[in-house]
Amino acid sequence: MSFLDHIQRCNNYDPRRVMPLFAGTRRIGLVRRDNAEALRNFPDVFRVAADKVDLVARGDADAISRAVDRVVDSLVTEKQIPKTRNETFDVAERWGAPPVFRLDRGAVPFFGTRAYGVHLNGYRCDKPELHLWVGRRAANKSVAPDKLDNIVAGGIGNGHGLVETLVKEADEEAMIPPSLIARAVSAGAVSYRMETPLGIRDDVLFVYDIEMPADFEPKNRDGEFSEFLLMPASAVLDRIRTTDAFKFNVNLVVLDFAVRRGILPPDDPEFLAVATGLHRPLD
Amino acid sequence: MSFLDHIQRCNNYDPRRVMPLFAGTRRIGLVRRDNAEALRNFPDVFRVAADKVDLVARGDADAISRAVDRVVDSLVTEKQIPKTRNETFDVAERWGAPPVFRLDRGAVPFFGTRAYGVHLNGYRCDKPELHLWVGRRAANKSVAPDKLDNIVAGGIGNGHGLVETLVKEADEEAMIPPSLIARAVSAGAVSYRMETPLGIRDDVLFVYDIEMPADFEPKNRDGEFSEFLLMPASAVLDRIRTTDAFKFNVNLVVLDFAVRRGILPPDDPEFLAVATGLHRPLD
Repeated sequence: MSFLDHIQRCNNYDPRRVMPLFAGTRRIGLVRRDNAEALRNFPDVFRVAADKVDLVARGDADAISRAVDRVVDSLVTEKQIPKTRNETFDVAERWGAPPVFRLDRGAVPFFGTRAYGVHLNGYRCDKPELHLWVGRRAANKSVAPDKLDNIVAGGIGNGHGLVETLVKEADEEAMIPPSLIARAVSAGAVSYRMETPLGIRDDVLFVYDIEMPADFEPKNRDGEFSEFLLMPASAVLDRIRTTDAFKFNVNLVVLDFAVRRGILPPDDPEFLAVATGLHRPLD
Repeated sequence: MSFLDHIQRCNNYDPRRVMPLFAGTRRIGLVRRDNAEALRNFPDVFRVAADKVDLVARGDADAISRAVDRVVDSLVTEKQIPKTRNETFDVAERWGAPPVFRLDRGAVPFFGTRAYGVHLNGYRCDKPELHLWVGRRAANKSVAPDKLDNIVAGGIGNGHGLVETLVKEADEEAMIPPSLIARAVSAGAVSYRMETPLGIRDDVLFVYDIEMPADFEPKNRDGEFSEFLLMPASAVLDRIRTTDAFKFNVNLVVLDFAVRRGILPPDDPEFLAVATGLHRPLD
């Protein structure tokens, strides 16, 4: 086990197993070939060719979303998609472009549309060694139950902005008030492309850092975390290097923090592979 | 002109114009095809095949270095290489691996061997807006004369370590004493692959940040800088976005700083392309 193992696991994407999903000339998703086969039953919405899938439903974003929703509902019935999440993500060619449609979060990996999230590194500098606040995900989470996580993290639902999502998740997940979260600083983005049993995760995580006051203790409100732990940064890195204790993508966010803050030293044999491996170019 | 233009200029590498240079099974360089032709005159040192160049000189690193030196001297005489620099870089498959040989810095782009440097962002937080110390390169520099630069930057010569190089360059370029440079924090790596008139630059820059005291003013000792300027970060970003005032690769180092410090906001239309474009994966 190594730092790089976590990065490679999040970048196990193999383009030969996937067909691009197009809306006209815009690539908006990456559909695994077995998932593409399941789309042949919906020729009024998707056309499956030899080497690509075309979205053929026409109309505005509302109309296309309704057409895709009907496909998703059928795929859930057929157990091709486990369940809907009743939360929708914008689907677009790139961040900031007008959405082509909105897609239920539970169907995002099936279509391999790019998903965006915010992750917050909460740290303390009032001890001799920098410490990180770490959350433990609830045992009943469908993704990565019981795994360690950033203090705050969440997907960006359709129509919601970065700061809005950060403020909302900070309140719900860690009871961090707006006056405190206002001190969070944007610190970059982590990106990866990963095949999972459901399909493709083509993820971009906007990363924020916040120095937490010594007298503030995060508390969970929404049941997503079972506890918060304050861990020395070196202990966090040891856990990442040697275990799967952290959620798969949180390893990458914390490694990015460690690289930026001089916690992972540049003479570490994995330093360059980590520093250059956390930011998969977007295409 | 845009932030991304600078990143694309540093990544204009086209693999079709290049042949890999191998030492046995290890790829150690990237030789442009016209440069490879010039190596056919030295069959006891290099064998030029249809799709690769092999280093065929045998012996330890000293012996191979001497053999390559003779080739480089001939190439300088033939004006295939402008001049030697009397400073050598280690040539190896990857950072930290034992060097196969040592190569004069002036010949590095000809062979496209990977070069490593250190770059230091010097900043001040004692004003309402963060400021950056910026150096202006001397008018007689062979590379990027008169361009703006980081406060300290230098290539890592063979046998020299990261911190050793940083301390030496900080003293020579900005008269930053060891007691102050000890506060510099490792903050990541910027990487790019660029074709220049001389060949291929396959560069990795180890990035450090240092908060500079309000009462310290950098002064140049070695003639490499003509002046130092203290500029508001927003003015630096404006210069990068709209001009070529900064040395080509320094644009990337400063953009990395701006991304990490929340100076380039995540709602900037170029944010994701910049955040994911500064760290070309190493292969």
